[in-house]
Amino acid sequence: MRKPAEGRRRVMIEDVRPHVDCGRHPVKRALHDVVRVTASVFADGHDMVSARLLYRAEGDRAWKDVRMLHDGNDVWSASFQAESIGRYRYCVEGWVDDFASWRHDYVIRMAAGQDLGLALRSGGLLVKAAVSRARKADAARLRQYALQLRDQVELDISAMEEVGRLMDRYPDLRFATRSERELEIVVDRERAVFSSWYEMFPRSCAPVEGMHGTFRDCEALLPQIAAMGFDVLYLPPIHPIGASFRKGRNNFIEAASGDVGSPWAIGSSDGGHKSIHPQLGTLKDFQRLLAKAEDAGLEVALDIALQCSPDHPYVSEHAEWFRKRPDGSIQYAENPPKKYQDIYPLDFTTAAWRGLWDEVLSVFVYWIKQGVRIFRVDNPHTKAFPFWEWVIEEIKSKHPDVLFLAEAFTRPHVMYSLAKSGFSQSYTYFTWRNTKEELTEYLKELTQTEVNEFFRPNFWPNTPDILPGILQEGGSPAFVLRLILAATLSANYGIYGPVYELAVNVPQKPGGEEYLNSEKYELKHWHRDAPSSLAPLVTRLNQIRRGNKALQRNMGLHFHGINNDALICYSKASPDGSNVVLVVVNLSTVNTESGWTELDMEDLGLAAGERFRVIDMLDGNEYAWAGQWNYVQLTPEVRPAHIFLIERVTEGSSSVDEGSHVTDHAHAEGISQERS
Amino acid sequence: MRKPAEGRRRVMIEDVRPHVDCGRHPVKRALHDVVRVTASVFADGHDMVSARLLYRAEGDRAWKDVRMLHDGNDVWSASFQAESIGRYRYCVEGWVDDFASWRHDYVIRMAAGQDLGLALRSGGLLVKAAVSRARKADAARLRQYALQLRDQVELDISAMEEVGRLMDRYPDLRFATRSERELEIVVDRERAVFSSWYEMFPRSCAPVEGMHGTFRDCEALLPQIAAMGFDVLYLPPIHPIGASFRKGRNNFIEAASGDVGSPWAIGSSDGGHKSIHPQLGTLKDFQRLLAKAEDAGLEVALDIALQCSPDHPYVSEHAEWFRKRPDGSIQYAENPPKKYQDIYPLDFTTAAWRGLWDEVLSVFVYWIKQGVRIFRVDNPHTKAFPFWEWVIEEIKSKHPDVLFLAEAFTRPHVMYSLAKSGFSQSYTYFTWRNTKEELTEYLKELTQTEVNEFFRPNFWPNTPDILPGILQEGGSPAFVLRLILAATLSANYGIYGPVYELAVNVPQKPGGEEYLNSEKYELKHWHRDAPSSLAPLVTRLNQIRRGNKALQRNMGLHFHGINNDALICYSKASPDGSNVVLVVVNLSTVNTESGWTELDMEDLGLAAGERFRVIDMLDGNEYAWAGQWNYVQLTPEVRPAHIFLIERVTEGSSSVDEGSHVTDHAHAEGISQERS
Repeated sequence: MRKPAEGRRRVMIEDVRPHVDCGRHPVKRALHDVVRVTASVFADGHDMVSARLLYRAEGDRAWKDVRMLHDGNDVWSASFQAESIGRYRYCVEGWVDDFASWRHDYVIRMAAGQDLGLALRSGGLLVKAAVSRARKADAARLRQYALQLRDQVELDISAMEEVGRLMDRYPDLRFATRSERELEIVVDRERAVFSSWYEMFPRSCAPVEGMHGTFRDCEALLPQIAAMGFDVLYLPPIHPIGASFRKGRNNFIEAASGDVGSPWAIGSSDGGHKSIHPQLGTLKDFQRLLAKAEDAGLEVALDIALQCSPDHPYVSEHAEWFRKRPDGSIQYAENPPKKYQDIYPLDFTTAAWRGLWDEVLSVFVYWIKQGVRIFRVDNPHTKAFPFWEWVIEEIKSKHPDVLFLAEAFTRPHVMYSLAKSGFSQSYTYFTWRNTKEELTEYLKELTQTEVNEFFRPNFWPNTPDILPGILQEGGSPAFVLRLILAATLSANYGIYGPVYELAVNVPQKPGGEEYLNSEKYELKHWHRDAPSSLAPLVTRLNQIRRGNKALQRNMGLHFHGINNDALICYSKASPDGSNVVLVVVNLSTVNTESGWTELDMEDLGLAAGERFRVIDMLDGNEYAWAGQWNYVQLTPEVRPAHIFLIERVTEGSSSVDEGSHVTDHAHAEGISQERS
Repeated sequence: MRKPAEGRRRVMIEDVRPHVDCGRHPVKRALHDVVRVTASVFADGHDMVSARLLYRAEGDRAWKDVRMLHDGNDVWSASFQAESIGRYRYCVEGWVDDFASWRHDYVIRMAAGQDLGLALRSGGLLVKAAVSRARKADAARLRQYALQLRDQVELDISAMEEVGRLMDRYPDLRFATRSERELEIVVDRERAVFSSWYEMFPRSCAPVEGMHGTFRDCEALLPQIAAMGFDVLYLPPIHPIGASFRKGRNNFIEAASGDVGSPWAIGSSDGGHKSIHPQLGTLKDFQRLLAKAEDAGLEVALDIALQCSPDHPYVSEHAEWFRKRPDGSIQYAENPPKKYQDIYPLDFTTAAWRGLWDEVLSVFVYWIKQGVRIFRVDNPHTKAFPFWEWVIEEIKSKHPDVLFLAEAFTRPHVMYSLAKSGFSQSYTYFTWRNTKEELTEYLKELTQTEVNEFFRPNFWPNTPDILPGILQEGGSPAFVLRLILAATLSANYGIYGPVYELAVNVPQKPGGEEYLNSEKYELKHWHRDAPSSLAPLVTRLNQIRRGNKALQRNMGLHFHGINNDALICYSKASPDGSNVVLVVVNLSTVNTESGWTELDMEDLGLAAGERFRVIDMLDGNEYAWAGQWNYVQLTPEVRPAHIFLIERVTEGSSSVDEGSHVTDHAHAEGISQERS
């Protein structure tokens, strides 16, 4: 083994956190988040060590630095705030701090009444060496102290404090060690971590039944969707739909005349991924929709499905992007024995991959130029990971505000790897996690392991592809409880509407998850104002989410005990701990369930046995609670859940301070008014 | 972001284990160990993936490879045996296996009765492509199959099996992915993981009281030490002892005339670290001792203490290796307010570090040339980590059989970092871990976390520096129980004798851990044959250790429940599970304690509720046990512990098979015979 270039770098730095796969992938944070970095920093012997955190935004040349503090057991920490979106880099630097060691020993020598002469002179040499590192005025002060110490003048406490401060300002970094690998963070805008999605088929928005809806028709619905409190309006693909092998209603193998086909069978003589389905409107109409949505506080998310109908212009213009069968025909999608002859997958193993990658990049860039900033990517797990890593970084380097939602429902490693490759948000298994045990285990994995550093869950209780069993069997109470769970467990959530508000739940086949008469294959006309609509509950939940910072992140999630497996109890706290929300949900769609909470008082910011007040933000009711054991009873259709704001009872005050949270009683009555 | 050089490398490889700090340091294993490597290997889409483990000994150019098997959930594993000592490298390679995918789909298509024409031709193309990768005879077979498939000849099951085997032999690795970093293993000889140490001061070995012992005197004791079953004889420093500031008896600040000084105050006009203290003998005597020890089955371990007395030749010849005080004098060791004026530390921060490193290397090499293969390094934590990493790798690259024991009792990060830097074994906190909770927690950290990959504990119940409180207070029963714990919890252990066998336990000061009249500062004359000696127990324990593979590794350690906090119950299993030892120890030095075990039957290789036999290897008694609950009663001075061999009761046999284990009844009676 060769000797190192510098054998005097004695400080060891280990286990710098946060990191994803040893630094192979960036950690994710949101704008204004405080990034806390920890590391083990230590040296041989008894010398004192100092450490600092170095960080910089991608474009910056110079590192910023902040001193780390010793938290004990050789673990050090420091924090910085992410002040801009984009990439940051960080690393940790540690060094043997001779002056700190000297000062530490000096105090002991003094207390022991030892002769200080040589010790003072040693200190003087250290201070003198710092002079050349110091800026003007500081250098002068240091020179002064160096002379005093050389002359064995004992410094008083305040002088020692000052020289300590000055020496800290100009550490001797000649033999400092840096952590082995620079780590990265992707800082996204707030919507990456806190968003409420509404999925809607534009073609079903026509005011008249049987008409093909248009972007103009969508505009008319914007106020209603915004009033429910959503901030992302997600549209299935808006591109021309292929005619060859077009699927009929209920995914029938042959389309009847007049069948509109699936929006995911992209491409026709009208164009491909950069074109708009003529029946929806023009590019201008789309731009107008974007603008109107923005006025209403909604962002439009586009669906990017990287596959082609046999009629897609790519098929003739870029045959090299498709796989050929031995007979020279193009390979349609297959999952043997199933055949999907209406779909030609793009072949990411083509020798012409460079051209294909560039073209897909240009598709994203085209829509970004129109003003789109959020993409929901269809089946990203059937395209190569290196492609995603490249295309997302490429886009975000120029448009750091662009967000990507990965629509992958597949094996854990694959889902997590997509997130590591750059996706801002991800669909999850929430859709199939129903019991207390399932929910608790899954949420702990998502929020309390390293998964939380790179994978941002977006909870969907339904999608156009998935009508889960619990909604089929549980009816309206199931829709209510799944909605409450999604909206309070995950800071990002969404529903496919108005199917969800209207509790549509008839499957195509018993035991299957496809909707009967699915909107994927036909025009629908929805009665959005049906009296049974869950829109008031949706509205209330989104208000509660907006009014409570605790619900806008996942990190503060904590599960509490409750002695009934049909009840689940959890709390969320805002990063600064000032806002704490406690949720209890009845997981039964049929039975009244009751139980006693076993609250983790410390996690709620409460003392053991403390009296406190809980205000149910769903109905405005207040309760006086005390300690960890409190009685709860919940009844489907009447009161399926509590979403409590927790308030400490301040001395001499019996009224609840309602200044900072949402307890709009008028609204709160909404649910039972509407649903009973 | 630049496009990767090859966008078709679609396989992801994550979390290759074992690894230490993301591959920054090597993992440790012993010769003949089976190294099991796991990794997450997966790709996008539905294609099948294959993976292999690549490994090679440091000197080998070519990788060896072994196919990995899919254990489920995208985790793959494979193993190889460490066939030589030295360094190994390993990594994981994964690729999309088109033929495996084809074969998988083919079977489904066939079962579904689909037309197979094109599928056969597709398969033919894959087989044809493999021809050029294959060796002669295989290439011919593959060509044959390729033609059959081209002609759409359906293969029967056995033909499909054969072509599958051939295709597996010649995978298409053009787009294979390798794990990011090559990982390393240091493979040591067996003694690194399984060793029994005996520490002894040669100068106290004279047959006549008051005489200075010699290497020749040591020779006379070798049979006795070997008979106790030890395999490492560790000697404190054997170098000339300094006269300046020599410490007197009981570490008195001034030596009286005739005081022999501390062996750790190294160097005089007789020489330094490459010389031998004249009163011990000559280099020839030392070489003779090494040879005689080897004949007796003992290896001599030398103590390397990198520090100097003021009389060490380095002080005048290499003043640049010492730190100067402002008055030009050399800085003696200090831990303010304490001063150690008899010791000059070597300064690892010297600008002349290169020369210092080379000199220390030459010290190790000198003793290696004399035949020493084990070094116990004194206070390695006060020398720079980069130095250790360099010097140990440098030595082991030429002498891979050399082992290093780190004598550091300091903070966890520092102790672990020394092990990561290359030390083969380490002293531990065992010396101060007494209660069931303390022992369980510490042993779990050592054996069931990643610590186990790089840190090999060596358990010492005492050392010349440490007479722990429990031995002072608990007397002989404490010596017995701590010995049993050390010898059965850790595959490496040692005692400082004959102080230990003789249960010497008077401290210099109450509350302190220094021995009264410590051997560190004076000659001793021991009555090794005292009737109260624990030598018979030591002998028995070492026999049990040698006879049971389970006790020769730490990985198979498992703690079992027992409903009495004064009793601790644990088992060890050999890697192949064929040898299982169950230990129950009474942690009280005074009281008879009883309780019911709550055995983890599965971990013991037993069925729930199964009847089995336990044979106490300490006294030969046998007991018929059944299921997890079994009664145990242990009494200090009479029967302080059980060390059971577990035997399944085979049908039709009521006698215990004693062929393969140690249950020497004559010996087993030894303890109570000798100690009552």
